[in-house]
Amino acid sequence: MRNVKLMLQYDGTAYHGWQIQKNAVTVQETVKNALEKITNENINLIGCGRTDTGVHAQGYVCSFKTSSSVPASRLPYALNSILPDDIVCYLGEDMEEDFHAKNSAVGKRYIYRIYCGEFPDAFYSRYSWHYKYPLDLEKMKKAAKAFEGEHDFIGFASSGFTVKTTVRTIYSLDVYKDGNIITIDIKGNGFLYNMVRIIAGTLVFAGGGKIRPEDMEDIINSKDRTRAGITAPPQGLCLKEVYYS
Amino acid sequence: MRNVKLMLQYDGTAYHGWQIQKNAVTVQETVKNALEKITNENINLIGCGRTDTGVHAQGYVCSFKTSSSVPASRLPYALNSILPDDIVCYLGEDMEEDFHAKNSAVGKRYIYRIYCGEFPDAFYSRYSWHYKYPLDLEKMKKAAKAFEGEHDFIGFASSGFTVKTTVRTIYSLDVYKDGNIITIDIKGNGFLYNMVRIIAGTLVFAGGGKIRPEDMEDIINSKDRTRAGITAPPQGLCLKEVYYS
Repeated sequence: MRNVKLMLQYDGTAYHGWQIQKNAVTVQETVKNALEKITNENINLIGCGRTDTGVHAQGYVCSFKTSSSVPASRLPYALNSILPDDIVCYLGEDMEEDFHAKNSAVGKRYIYRIYCGEFPDAFYSRYSWHYKYPLDLEKMKKAAKAFEGEHDFIGFASSGFTVKTTVRTIYSLDVYKDGNIITIDIKGNGFLYNMVRIIAGTLVFAGGGKIRPEDMEDIINSKDRTRAGITAPPQGLCLKEVYYS
Repeated sequence: MRNVKLMLQYDGTAYHGWQIQKNAVTVQETVKNALEKITNENINLIGCGRTDTGVHAQGYVCSFKTSSSVPASRLPYALNSILPDDIVCYLGEDMEEDFHAKNSAVGKRYIYRIYCGEFPDAFYSRYSWHYKYPLDLEKMKKAAKAFEGEHDFIGFASSGFTVKTTVRTIYSLDVYKDGNIITIDIKGNGFLYNMVRIIAGTLVFAGGGKIRPEDMEDIINSKDRTRAGITAPPQGLCLKEVYYS
């Protein structure tokens, strides 16, 4: 059996997230169905992780075992001829037998976009959180620095997932503004459920003066979900990259 | 009666163009219905022009007469609370009695976007024409210059509209590239039906070597639709600005 890696982009607006579920259209199911048409096999498609309803991806990684002889480099063309326009495959690659899209991943990069205009923007509403109140970028940058490094992020997780440990390392957390868009750019060895969206909501609280940047370290160490900010809405979130060793 | 001007942005993907028609959802109908809710009046909403199914707008101008006392500056807030996310009103303004969104317009600016990557992009498929074959930007720029000035553009119009004259003046036609996106940026005193999309299709023919840039003037002067390029697909087109004297 070959072990094939695919890289995908998707606009998550129309999907109930990555993971297959009953009675809802998901990205995993859509890609799996397309692969089964191409290979005439039952495919067990392994994703690099879950994404929620409305969350986007630009560098999603998935993998599957196959006996098909379709060259990996041709798979993007075959897939894109079947997939809807909001899911694109841009790389297919044969991997070693032990490569696993989820278990082999050693880190991820996400971005979260906030649209700051007085009025929403018809072209960014699918891809950003419209926040019309003033945000102090310097305060957001300062608060962001407290997240970098290894911390127990249990105060920045939604319940509903079981994990062995809630300790994660954030390699970098940058905040920058271009026109009306503030981008939160975060790299880490892993993220808890809703962690990036809660960090985004917390940085917006810092930018809006509801949390002082100098209290950020305390808030993280308190492990108290109620001291962090709100969970920012899903459409601002995009999985940019998955890292493998 | 007050005469109120509105400025709109819309992502045209979900709409059968601007103009009200039976059995299809249009932008005009959606905005008109919202205004009627706000004013409790029957509204005759005048648009600056038609746009086709799937065509976008960033600076659409429309106007209507009303007896309502809602201040023009509050209309964007009232409208955006009713309108779907893909239509945004960002300006309301009281005008002189004789202002007419269509008849008072003296020119328009459109952009047309071409996405040039080998694979489509999930985030640009709604907003660009994916064209994966090589395009020579310099040839497109050279061909573009032939369109500037006053010409009879009957060879660059689709049939189906009646106009007094097919002579139009193009003030400027620029072509530039940023990353994988080629943008065609055109300003003129008016445009025939599908004219911008046929010009875009013709410039792609020039960039792809199917039409020589030095023949462009001849092709325009021939007034022969069959010598121009194809009509580029609607999703690449966006009305950027409408000019008034």
